[in-house]
Amino acid sequence: MKTVAIVGGTHGNEFSGIYLLRKWQQSSASIIRDSFATETVFANPKAYQENKRYLDSDMNRQFSHTDLTDPLLTNYEQSRAKVLNAQLGPKGDARTDFIIDLHNTTSNMGPSLILLQSDAFNRKLAAYVVSKMPDAVIVLEDQISVAEHYFLSSIAPQGVIVEVGPQPQSVIRQDILEWMEEMTGHILDYIDLYNRDELPVLPSSFEAYKYHETLKLPENEQGERIGMVHRNVQDADFKPLHNGDPIFTLFDGSIICWEGEYEAYPHFINEAAYYDNNLAMSLAKKVVVEV
Amino acid sequence: MKTVAIVGGTHGNEFSGIYLLRKWQQSSASIIRDSFATETVFANPKAYQENKRYLDSDMNRQFSHTDLTDPLLTNYEQSRAKVLNAQLGPKGDARTDFIIDLHNTTSNMGPSLILLQSDAFNRKLAAYVVSKMPDAVIVLEDQISVAEHYFLSSIAPQGVIVEVGPQPQSVIRQDILEWMEEMTGHILDYIDLYNRDELPVLPSSFEAYKYHETLKLPENEQGERIGMVHRNVQDADFKPLHNGDPIFTLFDGSIICWEGEYEAYPHFINEAAYYDNNLAMSLAKKVVVEV
Repeated sequence: MKTVAIVGGTHGNEFSGIYLLRKWQQSSASIIRDSFATETVFANPKAYQENKRYLDSDMNRQFSHTDLTDPLLTNYEQSRAKVLNAQLGPKGDARTDFIIDLHNTTSNMGPSLILLQSDAFNRKLAAYVVSKMPDAVIVLEDQISVAEHYFLSSIAPQGVIVEVGPQPQSVIRQDILEWMEEMTGHILDYIDLYNRDELPVLPSSFEAYKYHETLKLPENEQGERIGMVHRNVQDADFKPLHNGDPIFTLFDGSIICWEGEYEAYPHFINEAAYYDNNLAMSLAKKVVVEV
Repeated sequence: MKTVAIVGGTHGNEFSGIYLLRKWQQSSASIIRDSFATETVFANPKAYQENKRYLDSDMNRQFSHTDLTDPLLTNYEQSRAKVLNAQLGPKGDARTDFIIDLHNTTSNMGPSLILLQSDAFNRKLAAYVVSKMPDAVIVLEDQISVAEHYFLSSIAPQGVIVEVGPQPQSVIRQDILEWMEEMTGHILDYIDLYNRDELPVLPSSFEAYKYHETLKLPENEQGERIGMVHRNVQDADFKPLHNGDPIFTLFDGSIICWEGEYEAYPHFINEAAYYDNNLAMSLAKKVVVEV
């Protein structure tokens, strides 16, 4: 690993990464390691200026091979994605070895590390982060390959999403900022130790939450929302949900229970940005990952 | 009191009031009282459609006499304010007797009732609400007269703001929705009991938080934010702040302490919408109000 990019502001109203970039640009000591070069990238400054997640379309959905090479996709984020791909990639043959993409969520997810694949390098990374930061939560979105992912961090052969909440859009909370800064530091430390072949003894396994499915908010036939996340589930990210547990409250007062055949771990619960698509939450299965 | 208006969506990304309006339009039983007429008003539907607080300027700052009668103020919210003033007012000679304006905040303010004046009617109202809803917080913004206020609820001779949080912008939380619905119901009950001269025995006094001043976030000479609310103060709305207590953390790590000569009660702490003006929080003094 010779080149690491730390990306902030992929979503313009997720402020922790944007403020950390500003801090590191003024004083880069905390992100510099001897064994590799670190660069910082402000992915969507125009959305930040307008205090929005995005102008035309979600930046963090633009990085599939197909879309990056489609000349007909020309809106602001689609264009900006092509520029970032040229700067950090190109995807599939990237000059950047590792991307850390910094995100906030309005959900109560704490300091979460989202892995796009669960190869040996990433398993050791997660074990290292968990050993240094017991509050850290590991989320696996390895249901498809990195090449198939459309996230910004999929430009590089290795990339992660640091996802920290709860933080309202367009707010900066000290606790959330510090979690993000700490997790980023551990990731950089890990890459440095890996490069120098000086990794400490790591835990032999760790718990993680493997993405399984996404639930929509209750809708009527016209596609209008007719309910909300049940108060028992609100803020209960990574707490188990069982068949028959209340999951939604309709505005008419009735309650919808979850009907599922497995022990589900909701996360991204009631994330503000997912209302665009009427999404209520993601569900994961808890797994034990051998390192 | 013959006419009461319940206003939601004055800010387009404060969802509780907007969803309650929708609920009441489908089933109005819970807001109807025998002794007065209730109407509902969606103040800024266009901002809601765009999922923003406002399009051109903050709607809830447009209702001063001067601005309402200024023909040069023609942007969207300024125009919409004139329409609402014609519909509910006109201010100073309004056909509406009482306005309940429904708001959310990202701050941890719980169910707050903001009074624009502390006359006998409002003191009894607050005492009634507190007696029915012990979690309710009473905030006095009576430092100027209703006529001088620029809030939407100042159109009517009597008006209040129901301000409930914490809720991220563009999110609907069940707990926050239920607090807002409950407080609105108590206000309607109070007006009905008042009209019928059937008020119960009320507490002889109550505690309230009287607005005193607004603090800005730390800025450099270029007006850029250089710090954030200190973690001790985050979420500590209506908790006392004393001279020497940490209040801001600068991004360089240094800490700013509050220098003030009184016991201050911060609220609207780190409210997302106030970043537009680099505001950090409001400070109140705790007072005991005789009913």
